[in-house]
Amino acid sequence: MSDELKKGLEGVLVAESELSYIDGDEGQLVYRGYTIEDLAREASYEEVLYLLWHGELPTEAELEAFEAEMAAERSVDDAVLETVRDLAESDEVPMAALRTAVSELSAFDEDADEETDPTDREANLAKGKRITAKIPTIIAAFTRIRDGEEPVAPREDLSHAGNFLYMLNDEEPDDVMEDVFDQALVLHADHGLNASTFSAMVTSSTLADLHSAVTSAVGTLGGSLHGGANQNVMEMLKEVDESEKDPVQWVEDALERGDRVAGFGHRVYNVKDPRAKILSEQSEELGEAAGDTKWYEMSVAIEEYMAEEKGLAPNVDFYSATTYYQMGIPVDIYTPIFAMSRVGGWIAHVLEQYDDNRLIRPRARYVGPTDQEFTSVDER
Amino acid sequence: MSDELKKGLEGVLVAESELSYIDGDEGQLVYRGYTIEDLAREASYEEVLYLLWHGELPTEAELEAFEAEMAAERSVDDAVLETVRDLAESDEVPMAALRTAVSELSAFDEDADEETDPTDREANLAKGKRITAKIPTIIAAFTRIRDGEEPVAPREDLSHAGNFLYMLNDEEPDDVMEDVFDQALVLHADHGLNASTFSAMVTSSTLADLHSAVTSAVGTLGGSLHGGANQNVMEMLKEVDESEKDPVQWVEDALERGDRVAGFGHRVYNVKDPRAKILSEQSEELGEAAGDTKWYEMSVAIEEYMAEEKGLAPNVDFYSATTYYQMGIPVDIYTPIFAMSRVGGWIAHVLEQYDDNRLIRPRARYVGPTDQEFTSVDER
Repeated sequence: MSDELKKGLEGVLVAESELSYIDGDEGQLVYRGYTIEDLAREASYEEVLYLLWHGELPTEAELEAFEAEMAAERSVDDAVLETVRDLAESDEVPMAALRTAVSELSAFDEDADEETDPTDREANLAKGKRITAKIPTIIAAFTRIRDGEEPVAPREDLSHAGNFLYMLNDEEPDDVMEDVFDQALVLHADHGLNASTFSAMVTSSTLADLHSAVTSAVGTLGGSLHGGANQNVMEMLKEVDESEKDPVQWVEDALERGDRVAGFGHRVYNVKDPRAKILSEQSEELGEAAGDTKWYEMSVAIEEYMAEEKGLAPNVDFYSATTYYQMGIPVDIYTPIFAMSRVGGWIAHVLEQYDDNRLIRPRARYVGPTDQEFTSVDER
Repeated sequence: MSDELKKGLEGVLVAESELSYIDGDEGQLVYRGYTIEDLAREASYEEVLYLLWHGELPTEAELEAFEAEMAAERSVDDAVLETVRDLAESDEVPMAALRTAVSELSAFDEDADEETDPTDREANLAKGKRITAKIPTIIAAFTRIRDGEEPVAPREDLSHAGNFLYMLNDEEPDDVMEDVFDQALVLHADHGLNASTFSAMVTSSTLADLHSAVTSAVGTLGGSLHGGANQNVMEMLKEVDESEKDPVQWVEDALERGDRVAGFGHRVYNVKDPRAKILSEQSEELGEAAGDTKWYEMSVAIEEYMAEEKGLAPNVDFYSATTYYQMGIPVDIYTPIFAMSRVGGWIAHVLEQYDDNRLIRPRARYVGPTDQEFTSVDER
């Protein structure tokens, strides 16, 4: 036992994992040995889910079966949809609404009962498919109801990415939109033991079930130091735009005031986040398709300035912000979309945790008073 | 950075805390310097909440104001009650129902919006009071609806312990019942960085809000290695009773079969858990009041045998089981009752986390493949 305090657990190894490897100095990210560049450009989100959960890329037949099974699970029960409606109408924070709705899913999942061993792999793969398939339906329904529209029922004939955009907008996305969104899902699917993934592991380490673990992770991702970052980036870029200042000038002024510039720096990467590279290309592509590369150019100018002046590289949030914005996605559901992707990684890490479980129970150093003498309330 | 793997984080110090101190060799537990014996016998659960959240025991006037504020927050919104009804009618696992309902509370909490700084102490004390006040209402309503009864509305003129028993049974408890139940709440209110408390800290470390942190903790407590233990004890004792064997004989047979005996051993205590000592007195007192000390005597016989033969001492769950059973509380809501008490500790630790926050993000050792060559799906 060491007496050293490790408040953020930096550098503390709490697990062995076969899921993702990050080289923060080289700016590399791999899932099970495949580079994120190959996966983003060549594989669909469903293929990546299969890779993360099953350990290898699917054959054509395996992928077809997997896609069909997921697609068949997209509807959510009426009781959950009613809760989503209550939450949307009471103007709940989107991530809080997602947390509650995901938690409620367990009541209607045939494998989530007290008789099923929470570590049963087959049952967890079935639960994982259902949770992952239903999260987009919840997010789209919440967003539409809140905006005064009726939810759009999911379709089984579309991809995971395509169906979400269809449910959100009541319109099938074009190929560029669908492809870019699918790439964004792939890029966010796993990233070592970030705080939300770790919270899912802590929860599952008591042999709490998969729904509990994913619910913890959704709540954890909702914090502004984790999932909220790309929303902050977009709010900043909109401020830059409204200021009508030169972006570099705006950033200089902000730094002079002592403000942080959103979307730069990462505890793990010392160079440019490889996901930011891919997303910056997507952001440019979307801008060109729409005939307006304003947001992309603003981002590049800020990136160059921050690199020169501060030696800081953009993180994944810096470019996912404009990517989603150019797709017309409401800014406050960027974090729910992050959850919609990362749930694949959460489930994969929880499967690993169950396979070789040990209760996660650290210690605190007690720095409070000792030997307090108790007096009853009428003598205080 | 150390290369040593710390899967359960045993002995790793992740925080400084002024809340509770455990001496596992001496069998001592203190909250902010007061022994658990003094607090259980002399202080109410409300006093202990005040101590944990405010750092010192309340004066008479402070306690009265605190009790009145909590009592005024006992009702839950109709939408949450509707969700509880849906969950009870779909036979949801009690801890899963509590997780969903606690999560949903944020939608109707005036301090749980995007404008409130999640680390604002005053807002968190207000939210903490509401969450703690409403959890008993949720548990009682769930239990009654599931059992085919209508919920009983909370009363403001009863204590936290007394009002819960009243809502559960639609009958005011006698003084012994109320006092024993209050002591049980005090005994479970905090216990260092157990897994549920730690999960609340991990969640709050991203600056996710208090409702997210408590939701994570409820889910984590639901696992059988954590909160489920006293339920397992009671199920075992009922088996012993039904077997009509001598309890010691039953335990010998169980150990011979290689089964674990529920309620013995603890990662932290090497001697008898001080909470078990107090609860064993309560269990005896309840038995005597009811004129039947069968459960108490059975427990003592098993405790003595396990001490002699295995050198193992009972933990808190071993005696809370018969305590609750003799009060007529359904076995499958023992863990929700644990949550009803421990929420005080969860909130106190989250307040400490916010006061000196650092994102909790450990690492995993990557043991997966490297340099996998990607081939597209039609070539696999």
